[in-house]
Amino acid sequence: MSQWFQNGKRVESLAIDDRAVQYGDGLFETIAVRNGEARLVDLHMDRLTKGCARLQIGMPDVAALLDDLAFAIQQSHEMSGYCAAKIIVSSGVSQRGYGRSRPPTPTVLIGAFPARPVSASAYRNGVDTMRCETRLATGSPTAGLKTLNRIEQVLGRSECISSGAFEGLMLDADDRLICGTMSNVFMVSEQKIVTPTLRRCGVEGVMRRFAIDCLRDDGAEVHERDVTFDEFMAADEIFLTNSQFGALPVSRIGDHARETRDMTRHVMGVLARNGIAECAA
Amino acid sequence: MSQWFQNGKRVESLAIDDRAVQYGDGLFETIAVRNGEARLVDLHMDRLTKGCARLQIGMPDVAALLDDLAFAIQQSHEMSGYCAAKIIVSSGVSQRGYGRSRPPTPTVLIGAFPARPVSASAYRNGVDTMRCETRLATGSPTAGLKTLNRIEQVLGRSECISSGAFEGLMLDADDRLICGTMSNVFMVSEQKIVTPTLRRCGVEGVMRRFAIDCLRDDGAEVHERDVTFDEFMAADEIFLTNSQFGALPVSRIGDHARETRDMTRHVMGVLARNGIAECAA
Repeated sequence: MSQWFQNGKRVESLAIDDRAVQYGDGLFETIAVRNGEARLVDLHMDRLTKGCARLQIGMPDVAALLDDLAFAIQQSHEMSGYCAAKIIVSSGVSQRGYGRSRPPTPTVLIGAFPARPVSASAYRNGVDTMRCETRLATGSPTAGLKTLNRIEQVLGRSECISSGAFEGLMLDADDRLICGTMSNVFMVSEQKIVTPTLRRCGVEGVMRRFAIDCLRDDGAEVHERDVTFDEFMAADEIFLTNSQFGALPVSRIGDHARETRDMTRHVMGVLARNGIAECAA
Repeated sequence: MSQWFQNGKRVESLAIDDRAVQYGDGLFETIAVRNGEARLVDLHMDRLTKGCARLQIGMPDVAALLDDLAFAIQQSHEMSGYCAAKIIVSSGVSQRGYGRSRPPTPTVLIGAFPARPVSASAYRNGVDTMRCETRLATGSPTAGLKTLNRIEQVLGRSECISSGAFEGLMLDADDRLICGTMSNVFMVSEQKIVTPTLRRCGVEGVMRRFAIDCLRDDGAEVHERDVTFDEFMAADEIFLTNSQFGALPVSRIGDHARETRDMTRHVMGVLARNGIAECAA
């Protein structure tokens, strides 16, 4: 199933003293692979670079990392169609204690995985969501980053799986909607596209960034600001973004059915024209 | 140096697909070992049990875990004097994605480490602290727990090491003092002992719990409540607690020298009488 590579060799395990194990002291990227090509890889490298800077972990050489990524994809038999790759960068091994070794020598792992496309009917008719009880802590020093500290998303995801919904919506402690457990959220209100700010918590998804950039290039206004859950519930349209599936309409939040309307279709069309083929479904 | 055990066997590595690596999806305990005995082990088991319940990870059988802990301590040559043991419990291996396998099969790792006692002069004269710029996110669903998501403490610790201080004091986003990077904090104001509440963030240390219990048994009032950093700076006395060192007076916060006075001495005496031998220094 999963295949992991380190320095161009297949590996299955990691030193227990690695700080990924001990403290989740690192970052990751999950990259869509389509017909053997890593998608939006520049945006993934950009986020990883920012994350390494914020965590004070040395960013691996990008050219070498992309070579290793291509090698991992090529070595993985199942990588011909709809797949995913994952890059993990940790601060490496250290003695016991929160202090890193100096200078830290990062650990870089690359994984390749089979993946399953979301059904065409989900793109057409939308997906079910629910509101998670698990809240995101606010004022995080790693807000926006995709660190290896992901217990909040795990707990939210567990709720979501129990409920049978496609995605769980996560609020912060102050009742602001932030994101889904594995996606970012957008709403359309009075023809304006709005997505929650991620400066206090949440993960700044690569597809969120790409969608904002594409929409702005297309002449749309996209606002990043605080969004209360009540405001979100009252929005005209709602959609999710994620690096794997692109964008998906939301057809339900808990007991409340939602319609998929023109603006969401428009956004999906813009993404499809910019290479996110699933959104043409 | 470190020696790790899993199911009674020495191990050095962990499956990369383990959720400790991928998401920090687990908990840990760091236990003081003195002359081959794990100290305050009931309190550690209690916190681990609570943590497993909150994270919905099956708590390992305590009797078996204590047997494995004793075995790891016994197998480690350096464990005769002043040492530490660590227990890691993760939600185990799963496929890619935040969702756990159902039912999850926890991974249990036990490590044994040499450790170095804090100097007797630190117990007598106190230790230097500094205020970390890194803030703790507030409203965390895992407040109080010792989860494997510890990037905030890692970043705080890096600041502290750069400054040369013994410990860094960590505030939340609302300027409340919460704890040290690897310790809990207490202050004495008008003869009252106060320690910050940990219901929004921070780790509820085992030595903090033990000190509160011992002090209350001894007839003292100990208050757990919100503490602003300004209030902390103005306190008459300040001390730190940690499972490894017991309690230590604070002699400095940044540029501000502090005196060690009677109440801190009294607390250390109470802990020493309750088996925390270092505090008799």
